[in-house]
Amino acid sequence: VLRVDPDRMRADFDALAAIGRTGAGGVSRPTFGDAHLAARAWFLERAAAAGLETRIDSAGNHSAVLRSTRADAATLVLGSHLDSVPDGGRFDGALGVVAALEALRTAKDARLGLPVGLEAIDFTDEEGTLVGLLGSEALAGALRLEALARPRGGRDALLAGLARAGLVEERIADARREPGSLAGYLELHIEQGPVLERERVDVGVVTGIVGSRSFRLEFIGVAQHAGTTPMGVRRDAGLGAAAFIIAARALALRDHPDCVVTVGSVTLEPGAFNVVPGRARLALEFRSPDAARLAALEGELLELAGHEAEAYGLDLEIVLVGRWEPAPLDPTVRAAIGRAAQELGLSTLELASGAGHDAQALAGVTRAGMIFVPSTGGVSHQPAEHTEWSDCVNGANVLLGAALELAR
Amino acid sequence: VLRVDPDRMRADFDALAAIGRTGAGGVSRPTFGDAHLAARAWFLERAAAAGLETRIDSAGNHSAVLRSTRADAATLVLGSHLDSVPDGGRFDGALGVVAALEALRTAKDARLGLPVGLEAIDFTDEEGTLVGLLGSEALAGALRLEALARPRGGRDALLAGLARAGLVEERIADARREPGSLAGYLELHIEQGPVLERERVDVGVVTGIVGSRSFRLEFIGVAQHAGTTPMGVRRDAGLGAAAFIIAARALALRDHPDCVVTVGSVTLEPGAFNVVPGRARLALEFRSPDAARLAALEGELLELAGHEAEAYGLDLEIVLVGRWEPAPLDPTVRAAIGRAAQELGLSTLELASGAGHDAQALAGVTRAGMIFVPSTGGVSHQPAEHTEWSDCVNGANVLLGAALELAR
Repeated sequence: VLRVDPDRMRADFDALAAIGRTGAGGVSRPTFGDAHLAARAWFLERAAAAGLETRIDSAGNHSAVLRSTRADAATLVLGSHLDSVPDGGRFDGALGVVAALEALRTAKDARLGLPVGLEAIDFTDEEGTLVGLLGSEALAGALRLEALARPRGGRDALLAGLARAGLVEERIADARREPGSLAGYLELHIEQGPVLERERVDVGVVTGIVGSRSFRLEFIGVAQHAGTTPMGVRRDAGLGAAAFIIAARALALRDHPDCVVTVGSVTLEPGAFNVVPGRARLALEFRSPDAARLAALEGELLELAGHEAEAYGLDLEIVLVGRWEPAPLDPTVRAAIGRAAQELGLSTLELASGAGHDAQALAGVTRAGMIFVPSTGGVSHQPAEHTEWSDCVNGANVLLGAALELAR
Repeated sequence: VLRVDPDRMRADFDALAAIGRTGAGGVSRPTFGDAHLAARAWFLERAAAAGLETRIDSAGNHSAVLRSTRADAATLVLGSHLDSVPDGGRFDGALGVVAALEALRTAKDARLGLPVGLEAIDFTDEEGTLVGLLGSEALAGALRLEALARPRGGRDALLAGLARAGLVEERIADARREPGSLAGYLELHIEQGPVLERERVDVGVVTGIVGSRSFRLEFIGVAQHAGTTPMGVRRDAGLGAAAFIIAARALALRDHPDCVVTVGSVTLEPGAFNVVPGRARLALEFRSPDAARLAALEGELLELAGHEAEAYGLDLEIVLVGRWEPAPLDPTVRAAIGRAAQELGLSTLELASGAGHDAQALAGVTRAGMIFVPSTGGVSHQPAEHTEWSDCVNGANVLLGAALELAR
């Protein structure tokens, strides 16, 4: 079994972690900031130093390419992203890019003469400082005009960022690849959750990336004097909100074991000790790996909100603010990942990804798969984010093994 | 039965409502603002025009005085306040002052030769823009140094306000009256709640002013990724908060029917759609007319919070932020109010005041009573605050009748 060079990969990982390093041992590389641009330049330099071709497409995706011996060969893409959330960790995204580069170097050194090309790619703006999945959706031809017109990070920041990176908005869509030119997509990533560590498993084979819905719910009652309004005649918006939070959790635990339901924010108005809340605004999010179940959960949760509003004499307003469909990952690729792990003597567990990844964009146009390695304590998007280095190397070897099987 | 002049009183009420009038038909007269100072000056002018003595004490309380024929006579004080909450209503406080002035004018015109003096007083800063009950507590000798050192409205605003009103902080305590110089206290006020209107009763005889406690509760869990953290392993601070809100209401309704419990504010941190809340901060307030019951309710509510924290795997921090004891009102005065209403053919209901009033300060040093008139829809502290004029006149006549009985 061909294996990556763990020391060479470690040197790369450490060099990268120094770019945008924060005091607490994490990194801060928001999209198109100085640290992010420096990390991308570093990546291309390392690729060129290894004798790989380099390219930058019109969405700013940075690639290292190991050409096939055949003209017109399709390309198997291995990738992740070098941008981070502000004040994030060293592993999220970076591990996948470093491992992809190392896999290409290992394959090149082995002079395998593969029938497809291999490409290690750093996708633009996965985390969504500006847009989210910007580079991978552009490559998959899935980027919506709406995402650029009303970006998460604001329109001004997007335009300024594109200018800093030397990109032209009108040309971003040109990054699209013909699906026929793609032989598949593989991504190594940290789990960002507690499951693999808890189950003491080496490698996660990702079955799919969950879909999610976000709603803003507003329970509307009457703001009244807390001293002079008896309990029995109040229309307290906070009560409807609280009852919904409890009931939504019970519903998920009882009927939807693979789903997560979260109320991450509650605001009561006017918000004083001595005033009965007239309005309660909730941020509701729920996720499922299964499209039908996600739709069912949506119906049940919104019905529940209506029920609790009625029970407390409140009105209810519902606004959809986000909708992403589940992205099942390819069975052939999952099988190849499983076999690669088995050949290395590593234990595996199939699990869904609760977080979004570039793989969900690629899954729409080519066979795609993801490899997870354990996150210590399930912690991510923080300086304390950590994965044992032996797990990182395991992940890179599984990436290499699965890629070579798919490439042959 | 002697009665007030409803037209003269109406002219005063309307003139006062024009001072600090807001677009929505309310008034905004926060303590020592231009409108408040203008209202106080207007009050003294009206008193002087009626041939009453006027005085301003060192806490800024403004008075109109009808002297007794006897030297060394005690004084029966009738009053309320001319300050308002920002963007408040026309009736809160103002009605009581206008009615007190009208009662003195009526008594003066009738040349009754009373054995006690009558004083119509406008207390400083009842609403607490700066301190709360500032003038009435100073007069009762109950103002704490702490209240001036750490005032609700901020120390800078207090000093600036005192300067605007020509008051000297060190002399505020000099406003204290010897209890023996007081023959009692009567206050007419709008109910600010829905009870009298709902029960179709003309006049409320206030049994006491509720005591209250305010606590800040903080439920502490762990902030985690909402996509990657399964429901079963979360320590979601929002769940503990929501369970407490529901359980606290159930406790009050089941075991403490005369009390009110309110969670007026909830803040979840970090407060995003996709992060499980790590912290939930609640503003908890509860009130009871009975001191023993208030203490019992405090114990039960804090135990309940601890129970819910434990049930959801959370830590709990509790901070006391406010404590006011209940102020029972004098039975003799209550009986005099009841008789005065009866003589006028008005229906009465005994009820506790859920809101704070200057009467609670006076109740500590003299026999004190309060008369409530109905608030349309129970609405207060808003421009829409309203009481039918006939109810205002009824209240003023009860105030006059009760005062004359107590004065004889």
